[in-house]
Amino acid sequence: MTAAAEPPRAAPLAILCGAGAFPLEVAADVRRAGREPFLIGVVGASDAAIEAYPHLWVRIGEVGKLFAALKGRGVAEMAMIGAIARPEFADLRLDWGALRRAADLAQLFRRGDNGLLVGLAAIFEREGVKIVGAHEIAPSLVAPKGALTARAPSPEDEADIAFGAKLLEALSGFDAGQCVVVKGARVLAIEAAEGTDAMLERVAEMRKSGRLRLKGAAGVLVKAPKRGQDLRLDMPAVGPETIAGAARAELSGIALAAGGVLVAERARCIRDADAARLFLAGFAA
Amino acid sequence: MTAAAEPPRAAPLAILCGAGAFPLEVAADVRRAGREPFLIGVVGASDAAIEAYPHLWVRIGEVGKLFAALKGRGVAEMAMIGAIARPEFADLRLDWGALRRAADLAQLFRRGDNGLLVGLAAIFEREGVKIVGAHEIAPSLVAPKGALTARAPSPEDEADIAFGAKLLEALSGFDAGQCVVVKGARVLAIEAAEGTDAMLERVAEMRKSGRLRLKGAAGVLVKAPKRGQDLRLDMPAVGPETIAGAARAELSGIALAAGGVLVAERARCIRDADAARLFLAGFAA
Repeated sequence: MTAAAEPPRAAPLAILCGAGAFPLEVAADVRRAGREPFLIGVVGASDAAIEAYPHLWVRIGEVGKLFAALKGRGVAEMAMIGAIARPEFADLRLDWGALRRAADLAQLFRRGDNGLLVGLAAIFEREGVKIVGAHEIAPSLVAPKGALTARAPSPEDEADIAFGAKLLEALSGFDAGQCVVVKGARVLAIEAAEGTDAMLERVAEMRKSGRLRLKGAAGVLVKAPKRGQDLRLDMPAVGPETIAGAARAELSGIALAAGGVLVAERARCIRDADAARLFLAGFAA
Repeated sequence: MTAAAEPPRAAPLAILCGAGAFPLEVAADVRRAGREPFLIGVVGASDAAIEAYPHLWVRIGEVGKLFAALKGRGVAEMAMIGAIARPEFADLRLDWGALRRAADLAQLFRRGDNGLLVGLAAIFEREGVKIVGAHEIAPSLVAPKGALTARAPSPEDEADIAFGAKLLEALSGFDAGQCVVVKGARVLAIEAAEGTDAMLERVAEMRKSGRLRLKGAAGVLVKAPKRGQDLRLDMPAVGPETIAGAARAELSGIALAAGGVLVAERARCIRDADAARLFLAGFAA
């Protein structure tokens, strides 16, 4: 009898780095846990600071180069962290490794964002690279249950959180957004391709222009993964820019599906939210 | 035996006029049909051109003045046409007629937009004023089935229309928006409190900024009433500004639930859509 080969704990873990500093936060957490991260930067998307770690830059479409590097380093696990703007298939600069997989790749581009990621993960896994999520390799970065801030949701806020969570659940099958803003069972904004920050900006503008006439702190941002969403691939996240956006929109707070949403720069998020008198809380999803 | 009293055809029909020229289009259609419309302008919302008809200006909250005028003229039917920005209850300047109904009115303001309108209609009907819809008094303004433009939806567009209609159906229970923009089963935008024009502007901006990377005419605006929505109260509508917005967003077309969406300035809409190579079509809802 042979035991199934588990990659040794010291095996390098690759992080495919999307935009922003969050991939670096995950890398730091992974390193603290005793594993050496190997960072893959995407030209035009990733932060240059990834160069503080062992790293490789690739262009979107350089699939062959990427797989060769992963194999060369014996990488058996990879996390995909941070957003990368969805390219058009026709814009990809495909290398030979990509052309070998072109039929698979082309098919992906007929799917929604989530379908694209699921298919991309399947391609990596067929090459022997297991896809892992930030919540598995850096669980301290995930929203817990309950309030993180001095302020906690009021009973009215709790009702809006429940309403927003139900609305997100209804949207789940459509691979649309992961965020809504709700105030008194009224839907102020629903996220789709614009993203959370732009959606919050819109709420702020509607209040400024008088299209939304609300007094004082009002409205809850509710964020949750889609039903059945593979958290290894595309985990919803908030960060200081979310707090700033919620403050500009004069919301009462931010509610995150506990265990399902990443909080980047948690200490700063809590400090900023407290300063803006926002609650930041996890709800049981 | 006494027959139920039907209001005589010559009985005046009131039109509570929201923003824009559409209430005037309805008034013209009503007059062509041989009835004399009595227009009620809302200070700060309605077009001054309503003064071409018998009219009355009221402020939001002048409920007593409004009911007295309707009774004085023997108005038994009223249509509510065009949008009025939702006021906060505390901002209303309530007159005595409103204060008598204050408990009812205050309760309305705890509801979503649709709930507010339903309750408002009930208050009018209790006072003996039957609420009628634009589709009843001016049916020539409603979207028919099929393409109005030279261009018709392609099979891909038809798939996006079906997807968008299903998404709107799923949103129905939440009293949210009536519009989505879909491209290849991907949800680009969902309308909530910002309205259709702002949503289209957002799609145009996402294309300009490169957040959405789509080539050529792409995406369909799908608009439909909510399930169970009372079309007498709040009928979805499009007009030349919708065509202009869709053109700026470089969509392939606009699909409307046949019988459920008003088309303001139809001739101009068709001309503008043809010039922009957009389709404008009704789908069986």
